[in-house]
Amino acid sequence: MIELTFLGTNATKPTLERFTSSIAIRHEGEVYLFDCGEGIQIRIGQSGFSLMKIDKLFVTHLHGDHVLGIPGILFSMAKNQREAPLKIYGPPGTAMSVHHMRRASYGRIPFEIDVIELEPGDTVGPITAFETEHTGNSIGYVFREPDTTRIDKAKMDKHGFKPNSKFKKLKQGETIEINGIKLKPKDWLIPVKGSSLAYTGDTVKSDKVIEAVAGVDLLIHESTYLSEDDSGFDYGHCSAKDAARVAKQAGVGSLFLIHFSPRYANLAPLLKEAKQVFKNSFIAKDLARVTIKDTIVQVE
Amino acid sequence: MIELTFLGTNATKPTLERFTSSIAIRHEGEVYLFDCGEGIQIRIGQSGFSLMKIDKLFVTHLHGDHVLGIPGILFSMAKNQREAPLKIYGPPGTAMSVHHMRRASYGRIPFEIDVIELEPGDTVGPITAFETEHTGNSIGYVFREPDTTRIDKAKMDKHGFKPNSKFKKLKQGETIEINGIKLKPKDWLIPVKGSSLAYTGDTVKSDKVIEAVAGVDLLIHESTYLSEDDSGFDYGHCSAKDAARVAKQAGVGSLFLIHFSPRYANLAPLLKEAKQVFKNSFIAKDLARVTIKDTIVQVE
Repeated sequence: MIELTFLGTNATKPTLERFTSSIAIRHEGEVYLFDCGEGIQIRIGQSGFSLMKIDKLFVTHLHGDHVLGIPGILFSMAKNQREAPLKIYGPPGTAMSVHHMRRASYGRIPFEIDVIELEPGDTVGPITAFETEHTGNSIGYVFREPDTTRIDKAKMDKHGFKPNSKFKKLKQGETIEINGIKLKPKDWLIPVKGSSLAYTGDTVKSDKVIEAVAGVDLLIHESTYLSEDDSGFDYGHCSAKDAARVAKQAGVGSLFLIHFSPRYANLAPLLKEAKQVFKNSFIAKDLARVTIKDTIVQVE
Repeated sequence: MIELTFLGTNATKPTLERFTSSIAIRHEGEVYLFDCGEGIQIRIGQSGFSLMKIDKLFVTHLHGDHVLGIPGILFSMAKNQREAPLKIYGPPGTAMSVHHMRRASYGRIPFEIDVIELEPGDTVGPITAFETEHTGNSIGYVFREPDTTRIDKAKMDKHGFKPNSKFKKLKQGETIEINGIKLKPKDWLIPVKGSSLAYTGDTVKSDKVIEAVAGVDLLIHESTYLSEDDSGFDYGHCSAKDAARVAKQAGVGSLFLIHFSPRYANLAPLLKEAKQVFKNSFIAKDLARVTIKDTIVQVE
């Protein structure tokens, strides 16, 4: 299961209702942070995540509304006597930005910070960077659980086979024997597709994005403007309608719009124009939690 | 009149209820910002101040909880096409910190930033820096309106003198003549004492502070701990009780405690121990507004 919490959903400027871009993803005991707008440690506190559990931070690009929460997080981790190393991934330029962030205020940082600059196609565990089209070095991230299998319990029940310590071996691909009957994995295991999501960071509507996010269960796509206001191409941004076109063309399960210009007090028109193109569209809200289990997206 | 708004009142770590250190002061059409903790642009938005009206920012020292809101403010001012120069004052080291803040994220800053490093005793208009005792370079600020005079209206009424264009000259120190009677300034002007306040930033209880803030109408003093928890001296901090001792010894009008350790969910014990020493003590709260008019402190 992948569990994600939107921590900040605005573009440009944080407000009390909408901090700037950040998403926390919890998966198999690890907490990943994607982008980190100013003040995100406040939202982390509200969300119930422990700041100290974040070991990997993924940055899409180096504009202030995506990274200016990092210095505060480093400062608070230091105050909490963190010792574990922190890994920060991002496009070329990330190391230089982090270099300056560490020196923006005084105070010793008693843990190691490794900055790893990624190119599209680079992977970190279940996460792969992909190319986006913004105004400088920028990448998006796709998170794909590997496909697995599960025991066909209904069939087992039907044959009177009770849960058994040998099941683990069967799941690992071995043929097992119960009551003298040989059970081959291919007959008793059901394939389970891994869950997946993608987060674009900032980008115009892009074929490269469509290709990279094809078929994900959940696409989180920037949608800075309404299409009628969209002078965004010049600034490397995208309308809600174009975000929905990407979702449709990529054949994703659900679309969450994010990164809204602060000019919009009411986001209903953005949702409306997205839904006209791609029905399964939603507005990302700060502190909203979404799970993806067996490819099923659920808003909590 | 001096009008001040507390924008952030916590030490170390911002929470939704208490952002970290920052105070906005409005005086004669100018808006000054004292310290700027992370996310303070959110509080500025809530307070109704315009970010663009801030032309002078005063920093007490360069710890993260006092300065990490500056990069976000620069980013937002740039997004708003600010052209007016911004002046940032602070202790030695401020220029280097601002150098790094400008480079922590990408984005052109289209206005000039002048950083002026101050020594204790340096003045900027009504503001004078004073020495504090923290862990590195640190200063506090005292803001003193000059003493002025006003026309003794009651006396004028008694003599049947109506408000007159000549009053302005009288106020400027000239003898004027009304109905053939000479009015000398010393007989018709009442001295008006300027209002004053001081903000310590972080410090231990210090005789230097007591001397610098003597007699101010309003003292805003850090009080990180309860006295029973005070291991603060090692870290350059102060208890609520010691802050009250400073207020008492300096003979100030009112004391506002600020900069509370996030360990305290309830600040009543800090207020209690301060009041035992100095009755006119208050707890600073985010977004609380205080005015000082003719030396009278009023909480709105």
